[in-house]
Amino acid sequence: MLSDTIAAISTAVGESGIAVIRVSGPEAISEVGRLFRSKTPLPEAESHTVHYGFIIDPESNEKLEEVLVSLFRAPRSFTTEDVVEISTHGGIISVKRVMDLLLQQPLIRLAEPGEFTKRAFLNGRIDLSQAEAVIDLIRSKSDRAFSVALKQVEGDLSRRIKTMRQTLVETLAHIEVNIDYPEHDVESMTFEFIKNKCADVKEGIDALLKTANQGKILREGITTAIVGRPNVGKSSLLNTLARENKAIVTDIPGTTRDVIEEFVTINNIPLKLLDTAGIRETMDLVEQIGVERSRAAVLEADLILLVLNSAEPLHEDELKLLEQLKGRPTLILLNKIDLPQQLERGQISNYFPENAIVELSAKTQEGLDHLEEAISELFFGGKLESGDLTYVSNVRHIALLKKAKQSLADAYNAADAGVPIDILQIDVRLAWEQLGEVIGDSAPDALIDQIFSQFCLGK
Amino acid sequence: MLSDTIAAISTAVGESGIAVIRVSGPEAISEVGRLFRSKTPLPEAESHTVHYGFIIDPESNEKLEEVLVSLFRAPRSFTTEDVVEISTHGGIISVKRVMDLLLQQPLIRLAEPGEFTKRAFLNGRIDLSQAEAVIDLIRSKSDRAFSVALKQVEGDLSRRIKTMRQTLVETLAHIEVNIDYPEHDVESMTFEFIKNKCADVKEGIDALLKTANQGKILREGITTAIVGRPNVGKSSLLNTLARENKAIVTDIPGTTRDVIEEFVTINNIPLKLLDTAGIRETMDLVEQIGVERSRAAVLEADLILLVLNSAEPLHEDELKLLEQLKGRPTLILLNKIDLPQQLERGQISNYFPENAIVELSAKTQEGLDHLEEAISELFFGGKLESGDLTYVSNVRHIALLKKAKQSLADAYNAADAGVPIDILQIDVRLAWEQLGEVIGDSAPDALIDQIFSQFCLGK
Repeated sequence: MLSDTIAAISTAVGESGIAVIRVSGPEAISEVGRLFRSKTPLPEAESHTVHYGFIIDPESNEKLEEVLVSLFRAPRSFTTEDVVEISTHGGIISVKRVMDLLLQQPLIRLAEPGEFTKRAFLNGRIDLSQAEAVIDLIRSKSDRAFSVALKQVEGDLSRRIKTMRQTLVETLAHIEVNIDYPEHDVESMTFEFIKNKCADVKEGIDALLKTANQGKILREGITTAIVGRPNVGKSSLLNTLARENKAIVTDIPGTTRDVIEEFVTINNIPLKLLDTAGIRETMDLVEQIGVERSRAAVLEADLILLVLNSAEPLHEDELKLLEQLKGRPTLILLNKIDLPQQLERGQISNYFPENAIVELSAKTQEGLDHLEEAISELFFGGKLESGDLTYVSNVRHIALLKKAKQSLADAYNAADAGVPIDILQIDVRLAWEQLGEVIGDSAPDALIDQIFSQFCLGK
Repeated sequence: MLSDTIAAISTAVGESGIAVIRVSGPEAISEVGRLFRSKTPLPEAESHTVHYGFIIDPESNEKLEEVLVSLFRAPRSFTTEDVVEISTHGGIISVKRVMDLLLQQPLIRLAEPGEFTKRAFLNGRIDLSQAEAVIDLIRSKSDRAFSVALKQVEGDLSRRIKTMRQTLVETLAHIEVNIDYPEHDVESMTFEFIKNKCADVKEGIDALLKTANQGKILREGITTAIVGRPNVGKSSLLNTLARENKAIVTDIPGTTRDVIEEFVTINNIPLKLLDTAGIRETMDLVEQIGVERSRAAVLEADLILLVLNSAEPLHEDELKLLEQLKGRPTLILLNKIDLPQQLERGQISNYFPENAIVELSAKTQEGLDHLEEAISELFFGGKLESGDLTYVSNVRHIALLKKAKQSLADAYNAADAGVPIDILQIDVRLAWEQLGEVIGDSAPDALIDQIFSQFCLGK
């Protein structure tokens, strides 16, 4: 149990109906209780109850704010410590004056970003992968990504990792017995046993890693560059995609907080649309894909949408583009199908297969569903609606799973080659530790600090 | 009691630890209860309790979000109806998916801006002046303004208005008795009685109106234009004021949401600093105060801070400025007192009294406390820290109080002139109605709609 009491504003700041300040730690109830005037004094109140009253400045006896206070007694709280949530009026002054008063109390300090979740982890309520999923929940940009993160918060990934680690522990125990009492077993049987177990766990890791690409895309969005010659309808397409989903079109700052990118979700598929204005400008000016910056955008893109005007014959520039994009994850959008068609399809199928070609009209919105299907097919093998939501999306998890997979392959090969058992057990133990680091069982402090520092304040 | 159930996001939207969705109305508990899976079913839970669980899509049976749900049974709630507050993870998707599900329920609709507070008013928990103060709380830009609004939410102004109306009702009753049974009273005594009562109430209104200017300033900030020649230290002053109070410097959009103005609070005095870049440009170019736009800013300003460089002799332009600002609420700031002084004060005191002159150094921050004192003196007669926080700040209230005051003056004069009692009672009744409109007793529906439409969503 940690010994100090922390406080932070847990809601976004702005003009709003209400705002919530969260306080957690051994002094949360007594300290807030001293500042809160209500019918039932807070220290006498039961867990999971809400109380109406006023935050009072104990020096001036002035009413600072009219609030609702919720009480969660340890261990039945987010952090497993005593937690008090103060619900104030929205707005800047309201939360500021209550926070100021709280932070004047010697026993309360300002929480660090993610410190509430960190305490939930350090106190053992959730493991590291669950804690990491909490921030994914908050940052998620599509419904589907949210569902995946929620599953992970609930411990789906953790359970799979724990099952695999259990298998490895049993294997290690078997090896120990063999080393200590070799008479219990013939060595060759132990080799077979180790190989089987390693293969089993490796298979489990493979299944998880297979979801990694999809998971990462769900989490971060499909980086999508819309390219094409001027007046083929790139802007109309962008507007159509954006307008179609107005409620969830939003400007989410990038991880660096410097670059603003536009996120659009087409039926659960999150697209991170790159500003390709630069690409457009250069398309009809230069023969190469474009200037450095634009070229980089296309190179980095997970998906390139090449828009062609199907009401006109293919332009020489477009033939070059088709050539250059060959082999990249590209969809060819034949736009303006509402007009008389003039495009020779044969030229396209020289470069891209039929299922990479989508006919649509950004103007009439005809064919947009086909675009969505094509994206879904390209990235999720069409199986986006499958029920299993245990995706690995976190780069840290993916790296550890790959390492563990390698360790298990090493152990397998060593067993196959008849390497002494006390040597190959090192690899098995390594895999067990690498899997443990995913759920935080053997994660170093510096890593834990670094993970939680990415959280927002108040979580 | 209203018959439908409403829902809205009550916290500001953004990446944050938590967000809160509020649901109010007769179906709030049963409808949310149907969508919420927890240990205790919501309909069986007691008022003012919090429950951990999941929001479930009843069709797919999918867990949509991990939430805490607070329950407030009628009439012990903000709206006096059954209220459920759903606390979700922060972020856009989280609140969106829960709100989407709620709004799919035929018995729940999206709340209009301010509708929760409107219901609290229509259901009689608070009166109109209290409801209006709720939005003042949220929008308040200084600690002091918040305290004033909080007093009004608690019903301070309402009580004063009600006391005055009670006096008027008694006066009207006295008049009725006199009309019906003139033998009970000699008419001249009734005239004296009416005159006394009208004078009493008028005095009460005067006391309130005396606070109006201060109240309005607290609510909206002192519109402050910083003017002066180039290089006298205007920008340094602005930066110093802003940096000094970093925690509460904030960009709050103006009422039109188009104009961004900078708010700075100097020890409880809110200054709305106008962008005077335009004025600065024109200062050394033209003899008049400036181009039309800049002139308008100075004309509209509640306070003009004329910055002079005390390390240089007065410039000809500055003499003209002093002449033009004469009679306006102006403070003359002798900046750069950290340097050798060269300014002839005699020239300033020709235009402005000694207490309008403040010596300071924006660079060393010396003298900033004097600036604050001078502002406080100018606008609050130095009495900013008085205990009585019943200010009238709302333009609507001020207008009604002035009308009521006029009606009472009319009644008084009529009584003085011996106008028949059944005629002059019309003015007394009018005053009673006008005061009633402040607290919403006789406010027309259109006015009520208009007032609540200024609220933010979710309050």
